[in-house]
Amino acid sequence: MQQKGRFITFEGGEGTGKSTQLRLLADYLEQAGIANIASKEPGGTEIGQELRRLLVTGDKDKFDAVAECLLYYADRRIHLTSKVWPALEKGSWVLSDRFADSTVAYQYYGYDKKVPYETLDALYEIAVGGFKPDLTLIFDLDPEIGLARSFKKAEGMAVKETRHESRGLDFHKRLRCGFLEIALKEPERCVVIDANKSIEELHREVVRIVSERFGLG
Amino acid sequence: MQQKGRFITFEGGEGTGKSTQLRLLADYLEQAGIANIASKEPGGTEIGQELRRLLVTGDKDKFDAVAECLLYYADRRIHLTSKVWPALEKGSWVLSDRFADSTVAYQYYGYDKKVPYETLDALYEIAVGGFKPDLTLIFDLDPEIGLARSFKKAEGMAVKETRHESRGLDFHKRLRCGFLEIALKEPERCVVIDANKSIEELHREVVRIVSERFGLG
Repeated sequence: MQQKGRFITFEGGEGTGKSTQLRLLADYLEQAGIANIASKEPGGTEIGQELRRLLVTGDKDKFDAVAECLLYYADRRIHLTSKVWPALEKGSWVLSDRFADSTVAYQYYGYDKKVPYETLDALYEIAVGGFKPDLTLIFDLDPEIGLARSFKKAEGMAVKETRHESRGLDFHKRLRCGFLEIALKEPERCVVIDANKSIEELHREVVRIVSERFGLG
Repeated sequence: MQQKGRFITFEGGEGTGKSTQLRLLADYLEQAGIANIASKEPGGTEIGQELRRLLVTGDKDKFDAVAECLLYYADRRIHLTSKVWPALEKGSWVLSDRFADSTVAYQYYGYDKKVPYETLDALYEIAVGGFKPDLTLIFDLDPEIGLARSFKKAEGMAVKETRHESRGLDFHKRLRCGFLEIALKEPERCVVIDANKSIEELHREVVRIVSERFGLG
């Protein structure tokens, strides 16, 4: 793949506001004349939508962590080959609400390392190869605040996407620490953002980070 | 897993008659007083049925071979953990219409080795570990005969499960050879059966092989 666009991923626990910030950045880039697409995992494609329904709704124990990793990586592979890579080749930027760090945070750290780290590494190599995000924004927030927000949002949903929310607070505390460990391991790629701020403050911070990183205006 | 039952897999190309033979063997074992369940991949579980629909219907190029491998292994992991392993632990035999050899035959040999063999090996290790079928029956048939049968069968289906059939004769010739290579590599586990025979003749042969292998009456 001849990558011309930039690939930015938005990561963090439930209810950290990353999806809102992604949309605001997409609008900002659009107005700055930078073509971009806003996407997400799981479910960034039509087929992925069906996998998303399997993954984020229903009983939390309907399949195990290994099956979950395989399904997330199937969704990721379809997302990359049919949407992300073609867009980047054309020069468009791609903003993705979650990517591979979420699989490490949820399925490795969240499940308390029940799935070996080597499994996650092997799946990354199989499905993604040497490709990486140019920038990863990690939205960090106390999971008690995030989960409350997330359950409130789900009240309005016809099909509740709360399969992972239902794993309880300890799971979400572990995954918060997991995201921080990921950021520590790859400081070049990852920036941790304190998400306990207003939407406007967070947007200004995101714009500042992205502008500095890619030398915009 | 403390395995008490036997795990027998039925493999081969399209239209080789393996599904019919599986049902006949299940009935035979039942009458011989051996508890067994007849299952299949993909789609041996409720969630697997949804993955099966994604995998075997629709456009042949709707996702690539790597995504296909990940989805087949997700289905396999769910099948093993929720159905196959619990049944074997209880002492029931499990007959599965397709298992991991199909992924090697279709996604490695069929696609002309576009997916590295190491990928298939890694996925097996991740999803299946050290577990293996006790016996694998490989139904061997000229793909021209098998595909004709398979397309005829699909005429009666509301949703046509012909995504792989539509890959053309060369693909199916490669996968036939692939199954034979698998059998050559593991002669202890695999028995190749010439499937160009009547249903009754094939059933007698299957019963003879299974009886000899497991010391039945």
